[in-house]
Amino acid sequence: MDLWFTEHHSDNARFSMKVKEHIFSENSEFQKINILDTYEFGRVLVLDGFLMTTERDEFIYHDMITHVGMAVNPSIKKVLVIGGGDGGTVRELTRYSTIQEIHMVEIDEVVVDASKEYLGFTADRLSDERVTLYIEDGIRFVKESKEIYDLIIVDSTDPIGPGEGLFTTEFYNDCSQILGDNGILINQNESPYYSDTREQMIRATSRLKEVFPIVEVFQSHIPTYPSGHWIFGFASKSLHPIKDLKIEEWESFGLKTKYYNTALHQGAFALPTYVREMLK
Amino acid sequence: MDLWFTEHHSDNARFSMKVKEHIFSENSEFQKINILDTYEFGRVLVLDGFLMTTERDEFIYHDMITHVGMAVNPSIKKVLVIGGGDGGTVRELTRYSTIQEIHMVEIDEVVVDASKEYLGFTADRLSDERVTLYIEDGIRFVKESKEIYDLIIVDSTDPIGPGEGLFTTEFYNDCSQILGDNGILINQNESPYYSDTREQMIRATSRLKEVFPIVEVFQSHIPTYPSGHWIFGFASKSLHPIKDLKIEEWESFGLKTKYYNTALHQGAFALPTYVREMLK
Repeated sequence: MDLWFTEHHSDNARFSMKVKEHIFSENSEFQKINILDTYEFGRVLVLDGFLMTTERDEFIYHDMITHVGMAVNPSIKKVLVIGGGDGGTVRELTRYSTIQEIHMVEIDEVVVDASKEYLGFTADRLSDERVTLYIEDGIRFVKESKEIYDLIIVDSTDPIGPGEGLFTTEFYNDCSQILGDNGILINQNESPYYSDTREQMIRATSRLKEVFPIVEVFQSHIPTYPSGHWIFGFASKSLHPIKDLKIEEWESFGLKTKYYNTALHQGAFALPTYVREMLK
Repeated sequence: MDLWFTEHHSDNARFSMKVKEHIFSENSEFQKINILDTYEFGRVLVLDGFLMTTERDEFIYHDMITHVGMAVNPSIKKVLVIGGGDGGTVRELTRYSTIQEIHMVEIDEVVVDASKEYLGFTADRLSDERVTLYIEDGIRFVKESKEIYDLIIVDSTDPIGPGEGLFTTEFYNDCSQILGDNGILINQNESPYYSDTREQMIRATSRLKEVFPIVEVFQSHIPTYPSGHWIFGFASKSLHPIKDLKIEEWESFGLKTKYYNTALHQGAFALPTYVREMLK
């Protein structure tokens, strides 16, 4: 059988990968969850028809959503991850022996369970003893939390469906309340190329700027995401992602990373002119 | 009619765009040439089934293949373009009033004529009086030339078909012979992600290093190319792409560019670790 999974990047552009096996399919309370084994990209997680994680290039996404914040403040001890049900962000965080507590809040238990079962390459560190997993709504968790975090990572789906509330000013305000003075928020911030994700990127960035004095975005090459040009947001009350980068301190962790390095960290904030201009 | 053009990025991954109109089709002596009008990307040039140029994102490719070299040596006066039949590289070069001569050597006249007819957005400066167009084999041209150039841009197809000889040590040696002491060679240098282009990138870079003392590669986000992560090579006898970057001189040209800027120039050379390692 010649089986292909196709994602529409826009009405008029689409990307397809050949499927070896359809491993898992379930409609949870929140979304349609599918896991496929593909020839080119290994196992892939698909939520509501959108590709979230691939075995082949998840390292790029998870390096960039984790290490950029850690290299600006290597003293981070307590981290909140919103979303990130595949476990890849937590996996990268657990590599820092200096991190003491990781709270992960994922709305959809089915994603976590399926990832543990089929996506061990990302989910295998969810059992780390520093990790507490909360299966609940991240928006409510942040609103009601009395904790203070050093780092919040918003590892969400696109702002349609369950991820929508994670792109609002109110949510960013609530995050700000539970971030320390040197706190950093990193979010997956969509993409400048296709019109839907472009509007989402512009809106999310402008909302972050309403709440945080320092907001910059940085880019990465993620081949399986629409356009391959994917953006993350960096927001902080006091730390600047380049001026406060601690190159030597980060290097002293001795982490081997496949995508991230401190030179690339700096380069990632150098945006193309057309992206700069749409974020002005 | 629901008409789609599909490019295979590998045996198991493909990218498709919806076609409004099939505008042009001809088999030249060298290759199959098609021009399509598409909904998402405007007019696109396809050679032997591979996407070469799109109206939507050609600015990225042409900015990066032209301005990086010009910003390292803003005194460049005489330029050789090998390939580049769509005219986009020449268009960017003609924006510098300081450039006195541009020789463009394209093997396939059909590409040039079709571009002039249907791709005015790239081809409209081929009539600039500083441009001399040679319809001949770039390999032979370089071998036999008695000129000395400040900049050679190898704006080729992939190293299969007519582009193959433009990725050899012999060709780079011949280029070196006709480059001045401050000469720079820039080439389109394939991509690290899919296996075919990865091997081509590694081989081309290592051959450049056999010939030139300074070789660095730089990256760009070109959404319609396979993986969206596209690499260019920078080679020179004496100039380093970062240490010798002339920010103020380049800014003084006052060029408006949609992708390139001098901060991005520096960032583009900061490669992901996995790309660095494959080029070691």
